[in-house]
Amino acid sequence: MTQSPQSIWTDVERIRTQAPLIHNITNFVVMNNTANALLAIGASPAMVHAPEEVEEFVSISSALVVNIGTLDSTFVAGMKLAMRQAKSLGKPIVFDPVGVGATTYRNRVSEELLALAPPDIIRGNASEIMALAGLNAQTKGVDSLYGSDAALDAARRLSSVLGCVVVISGAIDYIVQGEQLAAVANGHPLMTKVTGMGCTATALTGAFAAINTNYVQAATHAMAVMGIAGELAAEKNQAPGSLQVNFLDALYTLTESEIEERLKLS
Amino acid sequence: MTQSPQSIWTDVERIRTQAPLIHNITNFVVMNNTANALLAIGASPAMVHAPEEVEEFVSISSALVVNIGTLDSTFVAGMKLAMRQAKSLGKPIVFDPVGVGATTYRNRVSEELLALAPPDIIRGNASEIMALAGLNAQTKGVDSLYGSDAALDAARRLSSVLGCVVVISGAIDYIVQGEQLAAVANGHPLMTKVTGMGCTATALTGAFAAINTNYVQAATHAMAVMGIAGELAAEKNQAPGSLQVNFLDALYTLTESEIEERLKLS
Amino acid sequence: MTQSPQSIWTDVERIRTQAPLIHNITNFVVMNNTANALLAIGASPAMVHAPEEVEEFVSISSALVVNIGTLDSTFVAGMKLAMRQAKSLGKPIVFDPVGVGATTYRNRVSEELLALAPPDIIRGNASEIMALAGLNAQTKGVDSLYGSDAALDAARRLSSVLGCVVVISGAIDYIVQGEQLAAVANGHPLMTKVTGMGCTATALTGAFAAINTNYVQAATHAMAVMGIAGELAAEKNQAPGSLQVNFLDALYTLTESEIEERLKLS
Repeated sequence: MTQSPQSIWTDVERIRTQAPLIHNITNFVVMNNTANALLAIGASPAMVHAPEEVEEFVSISSALVVNIGTLDSTFVAGMKLAMRQAKSLGKPIVFDPVGVGATTYRNRVSEELLALAPPDIIRGNASEIMALAGLNAQTKGVDSLYGSDAALDAARRLSSVLGCVVVISGAIDYIVQGEQLAAVANGHPLMTKVTGMGCTATALTGAFAAINTNYVQAATHAMAVMGIAGELAAEKNQAPGSLQVNFLDALYTLTESEIEERLKLS
Repeated sequence: MTQSPQSIWTDVERIRTQAPLIHNITNFVVMNNTANALLAIGASPAMVHAPEEVEEFVSISSALVVNIGTLDSTFVAGMKLAMRQAKSLGKPIVFDPVGVGATTYRNRVSEELLALAPPDIIRGNASEIMALAGLNAQTKGVDSLYGSDAALDAARRLSSVLGCVVVISGAIDYIVQGEQLAAVANGHPLMTKVTGMGCTATALTGAFAAINTNYVQAATHAMAVMGIAGELAAEKNQAPGSLQVNFLDALYTLTESEIEERLKLS
Repeated sequence: MTQSPQSIWTDVERIRTQAPLIHNITNFVVMNNTANALLAIGASPAMVHAPEEVEEFVSISSALVVNIGTLDSTFVAGMKLAMRQAKSLGKPIVFDPVGVGATTYRNRVSEELLALAPPDIIRGNASEIMALAGLNAQTKGVDSLYGSDAALDAARRLSSVLGCVVVISGAIDYIVQGEQLAAVANGHPLMTKVTGMGCTATALTGAFAAINTNYVQAATHAMAVMGIAGELAAEKNQAPGSLQVNFLDALYTLTESEIEERLKLS
């Protein structure tokens, strides 16, 4: 059950074949990008947030992705109903605590969501994971002030309290479950100059979790594919407008040999 | 009053000259794309949803486009006021029932909107048109599980009950009014890998309906322009990130001879 | 304290070094573009609108940008709390009255916001500035029906009543404070074919105001950088899909010599 180029490729092919329906309750900034990234990797995305319909929509979906980037009371109400429903139906939940630590509201909502329905996978940057673990991490809006390794203890604590996989994104991505640890060193610094790349990583994690119930593996695969597509895109043109376009192209045309040649996993 | 490369080109020139103001109440995922597509074809888009102002905004607009992709109670309230106002002022209404059939809420809202103010043109994929016609169509979120021809009977029924034009999008697009039928075979499969291409077709239909009161013609022209621009874009680069960019470029630079050479109409 | 290629470059370098956190309460259409433009110039953007958290978020931000493009009651509530807080903390406020004059609601909300917390900089097109100054300007949705010089008197009046800098965008951008006047003649007509370019100008103005308390200078610098990046992008490819991508690339790679060669300031 370890991660390898072959295990990644098997999952990419599963996504392309099964086209799992991924239910996203996400933020306004990235809805378009994350829908396109999910389509490019082969999944079927839907953005549905109304409290009147999220429970029904969860029931036809293969995974639920919740992202609090531009939360407000309507969206939070939808998130609660959707997460409780996903939990009761055993559908994977991936949670992205964007900007947690920056405001009391974000902290309170995150705590409520985690208490209501512990996610299967949490993905955030180091500041967010530390804030979520109850540490007084400093944040700068939605950006992290720390390297990803600074949050390893926080990730372990969070993982053991919630019984879930925790992903810390950064120059190196760490995937933590209890004492298990995987690290992905793929990616490119230019990715931090495009909005919503973290949110896209979370959305892709939803696609992998939809077709692979080993969530450590699913999260690691998602981070590897994300990083490799980002490298391919950045090598085409070192500028952020182009990166966004080339990243979607790279996801769509991704091959097994690109993964084999580039994967930096430990 | 039939459709031809010349009738399409006449309408494109009218849009470019008159720059009709198109009032959109649409979903969060596609607001940027559809605004850009409307600008690229020569129209003047506005996205306005607040119940406090939609009626006034309808009165200065040339067409109203309503799309339920990410509906919630605030947006639905705005849609109702706007559609009623458009109806009373005789402004064309184009309706896109995104994801209808997937949840009870979407079905109920769609029924209420159709009862309140029957649109002039409805555009959806086969699943959506079948669901809207009251058939128990299976849906997969916002994607169709059927070819567009499977929904022809549903489209005819819907058209005759509501007295409107119904467009079924797919590899072949059907434009139905009562017993009249037009078909457009333009387009490219890669368009299904970019989010919001259907919503963009609906928005463009609004632009054509704003300058051509023959709505069968307006809808057919919109679908043809959509498909031809998609082909031109896909031939430049067979990947979805590029397609989105190249599609807008193709709409903006579209020429009469490109329409003449490519139009596949029956 | 005059504007020059050197003063612009100094500010660009300050933004790139300090990466000021810019708090945006903006519209759904442009959230992605404006976040990406802020990242490309070197700032750190966040989109945060919930009344529950905007005051706290303003307190950690370096500037507040408020844009009423797709306003509704939830967003307006957030805008009011955020603007009052920014005022009390002395943080710069940049206001974009998108579509003011088109509806009574937009007029009323704009008046309430200006009365509550006069912004430091207002940026709009000629129709919007005239409407905001109380003139019965004709509007066409969110587009102006006037050249920017038609709004000079309105801008002077608005500036003297509110004690703020007023920017009129157009083929020539005017920056007005009382009797002071600067003009920027950079830019490209194709920029009007991409949605949200005005909103992006407003967002960039927030970044410059965050690092330069001379707001005439900050606004002039922002308009110059905007126009120059637009020219560079339009020269690469004369089509609007490409422009959006190339514009972000140009912002990110902008050099001092590009500013020196192109700046058209009077």
